[in-house]
Amino acid sequence: MKLLEDRIRRDGNILGEHILKVDSFLTHQVDYQLMRDMGQVLADKYRAAGITKVVTIEASGIAPAIYVAEALDVPMIFAKKHKNITMTEGILTAEVYSFTKQVTSTVSIAGKFLDNNDKVLIIDDFLANGQAAKGLIDIIEQAGSTVVGVGIVIEKSFQDGRQLIEEMGVAVTSLARIESFAGGQLHFAPADA
Amino acid sequence: MKLLEDRIRRDGNILGEHILKVDSFLTHQVDYQLMRDMGQVLADKYRAAGITKVVTIEASGIAPAIYVAEALDVPMIFAKKHKNITMTEGILTAEVYSFTKQVTSTVSIAGKFLDNNDKVLIIDDFLANGQAAKGLIDIIEQAGSTVVGVGIVIEKSFQDGRQLIEEMGVAVTSLARIESFAGGQLHFAPADA
Repeated sequence: MKLLEDRIRRDGNILGEHILKVDSFLTHQVDYQLMRDMGQVLADKYRAAGITKVVTIEASGIAPAIYVAEALDVPMIFAKKHKNITMTEGILTAEVYSFTKQVTSTVSIAGKFLDNNDKVLIIDDFLANGQAAKGLIDIIEQAGSTVVGVGIVIEKSFQDGRQLIEEMGVAVTSLARIESFAGGQLHFAPADA
Repeated sequence: MKLLEDRIRRDGNILGEHILKVDSFLTHQVDYQLMRDMGQVLADKYRAAGITKVVTIEASGIAPAIYVAEALDVPMIFAKKHKNITMTEGILTAEVYSFTKQVTSTVSIAGKFLDNNDKVLIIDDFLANGQAAKGLIDIIEQAGSTVVGVGIVIEKSFQDGRQLIEEMGVAVTSLARIESFAGGQLHFAPADA
């Protein structure tokens, strides 16, 4: 998605060898118009598949995911990373290790929101090592639902997350794919949409 | 907002004396259409005030806040509850105690996204004791910005959050105001919009 690649080039900050900071439009301050445009593109890609639910993980996935859900006219569910005293029963969980934050979280979704008729599109802001997406796929499959695809805003193509997800038999659609940060310069691989 | 009160009556679950669970449309599974309608109502209330930024706190505030931001055509910023290695400098913080989760969190916003020309509308899903909203007001005022108002989806009017915020000189607009859960029955006070 050229609009997104241009925005990353303009406003993204490369920190070290593996971290791209996009806090001015995606992960902290959020540009609703870009989210809306991205939601439309991801929804169009999966419109024929009969998606019934969009699933993401708090917190940076929520804004792009709600616009995908709107464009497909389905509910959005955001998985929780932290325990909450109002989540009491029928909780499906997976352990997810975050290399960025260097912690393992128990990611959870209430089972009552998914059943074996659901066709789910997962949306997330980043795909790097794929651990978050893998955890969501595990949870959704525990519920008996089908994961139709994973829609990603920014893929770090030099890490192995895409391969991991594709080997699970799930399609990946990334709006921007970063091949390398070599010498502080962004190099994009051809995007999926 | 009658549409919201009806939805709370239909789909809300009362747990104990103080907890209302609205995980089927707001805090876990999210109904984008309701979020869009609420965003419009809150934006209309503050349209004349020249709002330049919408600020919320992760995670359940993000979906309502992004639609308020869209309706006002301004950026949305979500404050972080957890430290992140990509947030390095110029971070404004406040300590917030959550009675629900029984933990104190350091809530933070990168100072570069707010300045003394900003007029800010805070949006959050719940107002109970007002600690989260108070923390956000503290941070926004540290940045030299003006807090014009606090827009809330569900206010627990039997707790003292509204009074706390109003005593700070900030207007509160709540779309649904719960007066009591007496005997497991919801009683609403007149809403602000």
